[in-house]
Amino acid sequence: MKTIPLLEPLADELERVERKLREPAHPEHPQLTSALHSLLGSGGKRLRPALALLAGKFYSTDLEKLVALAASVEMLHTATLVHDDLIDGALLRRGESTLNARWNTGATVLTGDYLFARAAALAAETGNVRVMTIFADTLMTICSGELRQIFDRNALPRIDNDEAWKTALERYDQRIHAKTASLCAAATESAAVLGQAKPEEVAALRDYGHFLGMGFQIIDDVLDFQGDEGVLGKPVASDLREGIVTLPVLYYLRGRPNDERVPTIVRSGGDEEQVREVVAAISASGATAQAMDRARNFIGQSQAALEVLPQGQARDTLHTLAEFTVSRQK
Amino acid sequence: MKTIPLLEPLADELERVERKLREPAHPEHPQLTSALHSLLGSGGKRLRPALALLAGKFYSTDLEKLVALAASVEMLHTATLVHDDLIDGALLRRGESTLNARWNTGATVLTGDYLFARAAALAAETGNVRVMTIFADTLMTICSGELRQIFDRNALPRIDNDEAWKTALERYDQRIHAKTASLCAAATESAAVLGQAKPEEVAALRDYGHFLGMGFQIIDDVLDFQGDEGVLGKPVASDLREGIVTLPVLYYLRGRPNDERVPTIVRSGGDEEQVREVVAAISASGATAQAMDRARNFIGQSQAALEVLPQGQARDTLHTLAEFTVSRQK
Repeated sequence: MKTIPLLEPLADELERVERKLREPAHPEHPQLTSALHSLLGSGGKRLRPALALLAGKFYSTDLEKLVALAASVEMLHTATLVHDDLIDGALLRRGESTLNARWNTGATVLTGDYLFARAAALAAETGNVRVMTIFADTLMTICSGELRQIFDRNALPRIDNDEAWKTALERYDQRIHAKTASLCAAATESAAVLGQAKPEEVAALRDYGHFLGMGFQIIDDVLDFQGDEGVLGKPVASDLREGIVTLPVLYYLRGRPNDERVPTIVRSGGDEEQVREVVAAISASGATAQAMDRARNFIGQSQAALEVLPQGQARDTLHTLAEFTVSRQK
Repeated sequence: MKTIPLLEPLADELERVERKLREPAHPEHPQLTSALHSLLGSGGKRLRPALALLAGKFYSTDLEKLVALAASVEMLHTATLVHDDLIDGALLRRGESTLNARWNTGATVLTGDYLFARAAALAAETGNVRVMTIFADTLMTICSGELRQIFDRNALPRIDNDEAWKTALERYDQRIHAKTASLCAAATESAAVLGQAKPEEVAALRDYGHFLGMGFQIIDDVLDFQGDEGVLGKPVASDLREGIVTLPVLYYLRGRPNDERVPTIVRSGGDEEQVREVVAAISASGATAQAMDRARNFIGQSQAALEVLPQGQARDTLHTLAEFTVSRQK
């Protein structure tokens, strides 16, 4: 497992999380175990467990419970990815073939379900009812947001006045909160709850996770327009091709209500040349730069939320970690 | 909501469970709320919540928590049905069109996921960590069993000696435990845990639920061969057509290792005439009667498990409920 240099001091704890994730929890079919190991092995930054572990550093929490929490958050994330890839028909994730590329729909759905159950079992290992409530609420938020995205797919807001802009932005924020920020917030909030933190510190750590997640997802959406297919492991503007409108597109559309190229792609996918043309237009318009600015603003808010917490290494690391999310290239 | 006459005295509590199931738990997309109401409205016997409520009668449990538990169990059951119907490509359940018949795969997967989350949130409302652990473990058992069924589909055991018979029966038992008995056991065990029952009573109520669930599922499998398509809302021998071998088929195959008709259907579905012929042969062979006997045996075990518990109305009702599961016609 590779992590970012900043998280080196967490190496031992993250290693325990890895072991926890792979612990045989239940008599499993060998094919399921092998699928699970391959899903976990394909890596990822382990940002979410790191958030839980770092937030836990402020308190003298039983490490075993904190590790169970961190593993629960990552397991939940992995479960949602399995179903997302199935729904999107994605064949590759992080350069490796997805489960749905190898298995039929039924086996893929059930493996995701099984991972949800594993995540719930790990959350139960914290022995904390509030943590388990956060876990369940977060999963509701994630699924509900994904459902909204499906119902709203291929629908393009016409942004020709301030009210329309405000609505479009609010909807985008709701969506990325559900998709990414809610689980980051759950990781940091749960760690605070587990550490029996004071209410204002619980709120501060939740806010930190939330704002960091918002910034993180915007960067993801920006990278989708700027990125190199080889680095990201998926084609440029993959969301747009799927009919999903992200922040750079919204900035581009603002004040360009009559541009017909974007609606064509959103509604029907468009052809490769049209997509490349729009990607170039969006970059040239400064829309991706505006999205980056908004991401930096969220990151600033996440750092500001930390001020309530005691100074020291834990706080410094969280501060720098927030910085990292805007500087990353993939 | 219609229930069986035996459960009339539970009408008020079951009504509270219904309200709990429909309580808007989360800001939901209107389409999701409407799908949820339609899923819950299509009925079902509410056997699982009734099991939880009845097991709770032995103890002076806070009714609100018991209702949350009963709702959680039914919500979990509903979630698994949504995914099952998707996986089986079933277009009808209880005579109404399934969610996957109306929505695309993505929306159906996510609605099931959302219901899992709702179920977890309801389990969390019990405020009991042990209940939540049972919840998570049961979901693992269910998914793991369904996965095994997918991996083993279209595989037919050759039952030509006692060892092979024992193995085939064990596998079948594991499967129906996962599919049905585990959740019935979770309902009764969790109610006992919530009631702070003595360990031997927790074990007795778990055993009662487990054995009742085993009997219940065998009856389901028998009805699949005997039933009237109009009453059951699905074609006769639907499992066999899907390549799933149930107890009546196992009894039929025992000592008939050279019958080539069953393997043909299991491996490739067969045509309507072949299926009708095999269904008739299975009934004539006494295999369904043997399966019924085994179901009655499980029901007897479930009733025997009750002996540890104090005599009275609660115990009598559970005893009669077990009886009901073998006498039902659908």
